[in-house]
Amino acid sequence: MKVAVMGFGTVGSGIAEILSQNKESVEKRAGKEISLKYILDIRDFPESPFAAYLTKNFEDIVNDPEVEVVCETIGGAKIAYDFTVRCLKAGKSVVTSNKELVATKGPELLQLAYENKVSYRYEASVGGGIPIIRSLYDSLAGNEITSVKGILNGTTNYILTKMINDGISFDTALAQAQKLGYAEQNPAADIEGTDACRKIAILSSISFGKYIDPDLVNTTGITEITLDDVAECEARNSVIKLLGIAKLGEDGRLSVRVEPTVIDENNPLSNVEGVFNAITVTGNALGDVMFYGKGAGKLPTASAVVADIIECAKAGENEKLRLWKTGDPDFVLPYSEQSAVLLLRFEDEDGSVKNAIADYAKEGSVICKNGITSFITKEMKITEHDVKTEELKEYGKLISRFNVEM
Amino acid sequence: MKVAVMGFGTVGSGIAEILSQNKESVEKRAGKEISLKYILDIRDFPESPFAAYLTKNFEDIVNDPEVEVVCETIGGAKIAYDFTVRCLKAGKSVVTSNKELVATKGPELLQLAYENKVSYRYEASVGGGIPIIRSLYDSLAGNEITSVKGILNGTTNYILTKMINDGISFDTALAQAQKLGYAEQNPAADIEGTDACRKIAILSSISFGKYIDPDLVNTTGITEITLDDVAECEARNSVIKLLGIAKLGEDGRLSVRVEPTVIDENNPLSNVEGVFNAITVTGNALGDVMFYGKGAGKLPTASAVVADIIECAKAGENEKLRLWKTGDPDFVLPYSEQSAVLLLRFEDEDGSVKNAIADYAKEGSVICKNGITSFITKEMKITEHDVKTEELKEYGKLISRFNVEM
Repeated sequence: MKVAVMGFGTVGSGIAEILSQNKESVEKRAGKEISLKYILDIRDFPESPFAAYLTKNFEDIVNDPEVEVVCETIGGAKIAYDFTVRCLKAGKSVVTSNKELVATKGPELLQLAYENKVSYRYEASVGGGIPIIRSLYDSLAGNEITSVKGILNGTTNYILTKMINDGISFDTALAQAQKLGYAEQNPAADIEGTDACRKIAILSSISFGKYIDPDLVNTTGITEITLDDVAECEARNSVIKLLGIAKLGEDGRLSVRVEPTVIDENNPLSNVEGVFNAITVTGNALGDVMFYGKGAGKLPTASAVVADIIECAKAGENEKLRLWKTGDPDFVLPYSEQSAVLLLRFEDEDGSVKNAIADYAKEGSVICKNGITSFITKEMKITEHDVKTEELKEYGKLISRFNVEM
Repeated sequence: MKVAVMGFGTVGSGIAEILSQNKESVEKRAGKEISLKYILDIRDFPESPFAAYLTKNFEDIVNDPEVEVVCETIGGAKIAYDFTVRCLKAGKSVVTSNKELVATKGPELLQLAYENKVSYRYEASVGGGIPIIRSLYDSLAGNEITSVKGILNGTTNYILTKMINDGISFDTALAQAQKLGYAEQNPAADIEGTDACRKIAILSSISFGKYIDPDLVNTTGITEITLDDVAECEARNSVIKLLGIAKLGEDGRLSVRVEPTVIDENNPLSNVEGVFNAITVTGNALGDVMFYGKGAGKLPTASAVVADIIECAKAGENEKLRLWKTGDPDFVLPYSEQSAVLLLRFEDEDGSVKNAIADYAKEGSVICKNGITSFITKEMKITEHDVKTEELKEYGKLISRFNVEM
């Protein structure tokens, strides 16, 4: 199956990289060979390892019958729209990360795909690599979904996290985010909530089965939030986050909005920090399920596009792809050969355990208190830990031994 | 499409309820009519609303050509195994919540389904309603998965949460869990880690493309954890959790184990409390994604089984099911008609705002400090909030107004 990528920016180049680097696993999961044939961009990239695929002519792609799937990562709703329409009409599936186009033209493009017996897929348009779209369609299908709430924009969540954790002002935090590349030089679409608005419109359209025009979503950004507001929330054991919220009322009508929202620290969304995104879905059978991950970035977003490419390749469910292979007993490392970091506690009245662990304990991890010495070890094999632990038992009784994950 | 349920216990009865209560949305998502035809159980349930479907004879199901999908919620690996084999050989798809059977007989049953051109699906076997299995197959397919880690057993997580938050001993916490129905009278499979072991074996088999026999997974339960251990972790800004861990090494071999594990409080798994489950998947493109939700319970688990039924019904991707419907402009409630709880802050040197909010503020939410009165409102429509806020501006300047979600 031949694939074309339109737009060789951050996401587009990520797609090319993943199709190349993860070729083996991608093809195993798709059940067929998948190769890149074209990359469309008006710019030149003579140094790129993918230079051979570059074309400036869209007609190369739309007129090539070999191309079955086209990735649209151009962005915006003009050229991207025209090219998407032409690809779908030409019988090519289109997969995209373009939330603006999906949110504003979704019904038309999905209809066009259906009429032309191809797919229009957009897993990457919300939540980067978080598999929220397909979960809403498939995995949560046993539920009547009653609400979807989420931290949908990493830039604003980064800024708010800085304000909350470091006590710096909105302007300073925004400047930092721009310096780190988390915010655009023109940050309006993020900080005014437009980006989150498009995403909650897309999630609502899937969850509630009816198209939600982003223009119907009342949207407030984070530009007015002060450090006093942050302190007020802290005094209430809460934090302020920019949430997209969609709730189905008992009358069957939808409340949907984007705004700075105070959430209790017991709400799992309150722990979502920095550029991470998280989405809570409530179903009438399921209760709450939360999805959490990096909401943006080259490779996470590109990996969601590639998952959509694979989905297009599968052309219906192929049970063969779901088999479990047997016959490789050495694949699992014996427990004794597995690496681990441990937390160890010894009785140590005379400090002799403490004196014996200089090479074994992780720097700064030793705590001696009430005749007990505890420490976190360096990483090594279980079998090596067993030897060291036995040695230390000469100096004091082992109280407990636990695995550590950071 | 006719469905049979084998085993009318907690999950089985939940499936019957969801197929009945969510019939409309289930059929919309499946694209066809779905109805229950049989429930197999050796017991009598004369009072059940589903009594008419009950049969004690497995032959009724396996010999009825109308039955296309059979839900196996019998549990164990004996009768459940025999019945599953016979259903698959009879050309019926089988969906299950039975982790023991999936973990021990997965390769054989998947192969049998493939040979008979039907499906064997087990979304409900891990993480209750959390859509982790399908995400691993489909949505994360653009990645080479490098690790899967998770809190996979709600009973043990409930016990550990009680030990950590309330300082009660393992034995007392276990007794409480039994009283609340979170732990079985014979709790061995939970507290000794067997249940988590089967689940990490299933997740590993999917993530790494090779069958992982649960017997190869070194497993330690939580019975030896003391309150001293809990305190030790707290002193290190960490918590102790029972984790299933599977990590692919650079040599291509897998380290997989279940054991009490110390995790840093910055790790999102550390915030997963009570009977909740959470699973972190790391992919080479994606970074970390976390899935969080109730890992057990009648309706969450049953909703995952129903999602699998729907998947069987779809028989290949049907793009029509993915269309967005338009033409219902009243579906979205105007912003002013949406309900909200607000956090309001007013300048209030003379306490007149405080005196005016008795009917408006949520009880116990008022904070007066440094000439500022802040409070959380009762829930009402935005338009009503607008009126009340305007009134209060007579008494003091409005400093900020935010949406609140608990």
